[in-house]
Amino acid sequence: MAVYTDVTDEELFAFVGAYDLGAVLSFKGIAEGVENSNFLLHCEAGHFILTLYEKRVNPDDLPFFIGLMEHLAAKKLSCPLPVKRRDGLSLGMLAGRPAAIVTFLDGVSIRKPDARHCGETGRALAQMHLAGADFAIRRANGLSLAHWPELFEASRARADEISPGLAKEIAIELDFLQRHWPGDLPQGVIHADLFPDNVFFIGQKLSGLIDFYFACNDFLAYDLAICLNAWCFEPDGAFNATKGRALLQGYQSLRPLDEAERRALPVLARGAAMRFLLTRLYDWLNVPPGALVKPKNPLEYLDKLRFHRTIDRAREYGLGA
Amino acid sequence: MAVYTDVTDEELFAFVGAYDLGAVLSFKGIAEGVENSNFLLHCEAGHFILTLYEKRVNPDDLPFFIGLMEHLAAKKLSCPLPVKRRDGLSLGMLAGRPAAIVTFLDGVSIRKPDARHCGETGRALAQMHLAGADFAIRRANGLSLAHWPELFEASRARADEISPGLAKEIAIELDFLQRHWPGDLPQGVIHADLFPDNVFFIGQKLSGLIDFYFACNDFLAYDLAICLNAWCFEPDGAFNATKGRALLQGYQSLRPLDEAERRALPVLARGAAMRFLLTRLYDWLNVPPGALVKPKNPLEYLDKLRFHRTIDRAREYGLGA
Repeated sequence: MAVYTDVTDEELFAFVGAYDLGAVLSFKGIAEGVENSNFLLHCEAGHFILTLYEKRVNPDDLPFFIGLMEHLAAKKLSCPLPVKRRDGLSLGMLAGRPAAIVTFLDGVSIRKPDARHCGETGRALAQMHLAGADFAIRRANGLSLAHWPELFEASRARADEISPGLAKEIAIELDFLQRHWPGDLPQGVIHADLFPDNVFFIGQKLSGLIDFYFACNDFLAYDLAICLNAWCFEPDGAFNATKGRALLQGYQSLRPLDEAERRALPVLARGAAMRFLLTRLYDWLNVPPGALVKPKNPLEYLDKLRFHRTIDRAREYGLGA
Repeated sequence: MAVYTDVTDEELFAFVGAYDLGAVLSFKGIAEGVENSNFLLHCEAGHFILTLYEKRVNPDDLPFFIGLMEHLAAKKLSCPLPVKRRDGLSLGMLAGRPAAIVTFLDGVSIRKPDARHCGETGRALAQMHLAGADFAIRRANGLSLAHWPELFEASRARADEISPGLAKEIAIELDFLQRHWPGDLPQGVIHADLFPDNVFFIGQKLSGLIDFYFACNDFLAYDLAICLNAWCFEPDGAFNATKGRALLQGYQSLRPLDEAERRALPVLARGAAMRFLLTRLYDWLNVPPGALVKPKNPLEYLDKLRFHRTIDRAREYGLGA
């Protein structure tokens, strides 16, 4: 939760002046977003979010992110729509950073989702996968199987500080994942970070998806595995099969998994747990001085990984036969 | 800039359910406010600010703050208006803290105010002083002349770390202020913290005042002296007499200073500089571990204090004869 970059009123007025949004009525930094600085912007034309892309975002990826939101919104997925400036561009510079204005999306993220929220999320994820099918720009997944070994190396020497034996356990698991990772599943644009804080609800109804800044091309079912981990475990670490079933059924109501995807689900879930275990481990061991964001506990994902190792077949997640 | 307290969606829905505001459509922590946690709340009934009063606020003072905003808003001062719950109360508890919902005020605070902004601010300050005249609740100024010696003692031993000779300079000045402080000026409710971040503008027009959480009863002209310091110095430390004149003229267009107030203005300005010098000095020397707020430089106020020592008569601030 942070605003990393200070924006003066003068810089703001100059930036917003390139859009057809009328006068600025209000401008407030919001305590949301780990990677970027976000501001709530009220103009005569309505409410918007202004995002400054901070240094962890590669500017070369911005046309993908911006284009993806435009593409998905055009396909009626509820997500922020980048607003175009009078010159037709959706990106500008503000306070030395690339910056964009997107439409404001109503909704509240749910801290303790129930099975119905999981079902809605599964459905929205499938909707996103279908809507993204003909998106022309591609972006490789920079946090995929191929990148895990180097990510691990950056933390390996200190991993046992977090939990004795952790380094060895990760090494064995990485070896397993390299040998068993599927090679031929349906691919497309995935969200890659669809945690509860990136899904908005009004009441029980899903109102939209946000934060597409990890989106990339990868196996569609891997995205679903990320959601299984993010949505279907209880705070005490137990897997909630009712939520798992709801998530998978919601997803399959729009995009049924094929046989290869079903078979791969346990290994994909292990990989998805590994990806967040490794990034959280790195962030935990490398908190920058003066950090505004508290690192998340990596061991939560070690527990999830261990759970998935006990799963033989996808039906154990609550997937129908 | 911070949100100190985490509020879950469940706690939020229960809290908002006591109001007639309809469903919660959106809820975002805002990176604003040094003392309290603030959230932007969008409900079916409109946009609001939800404030959680953190531990630096004395709960016994809340009826004063809430009542003052209600009183001032009823007198047509543009300021946040506390929203009443169905049971008629304007205060509740949320996440273990006292909390209130107030109306959302449009406007942007101006980083580099010009003379016109200063004039509008002077006028609004006078409007607040007049509107507060018949407010029934009283609150003593906890950061007045009588409290400066103890505040100084808390930093005295380390003051010279900030600037050699600072402890001695403050001691001499405190002695001067005790001997020359006026005893008989017009009193009333003062804002006591009307810095540029607490004044909103839409274009050049003042749209409202916020953050009444230092408000108290004291000399009205002391409030004006606080504004002289906060609004009329340039970033390089120079006093801008054009801004000073605009602030004072704006104020006097609604509430002319009497002769005793004019005579006292230089010493009030020294005292106002001392008050912020002392609190900034304390905060600078006592940054809590993991602080989310960067302390402000105390020496800015030492420079202002030194400037006011060179002033003999109020007319030098730009006040007409």
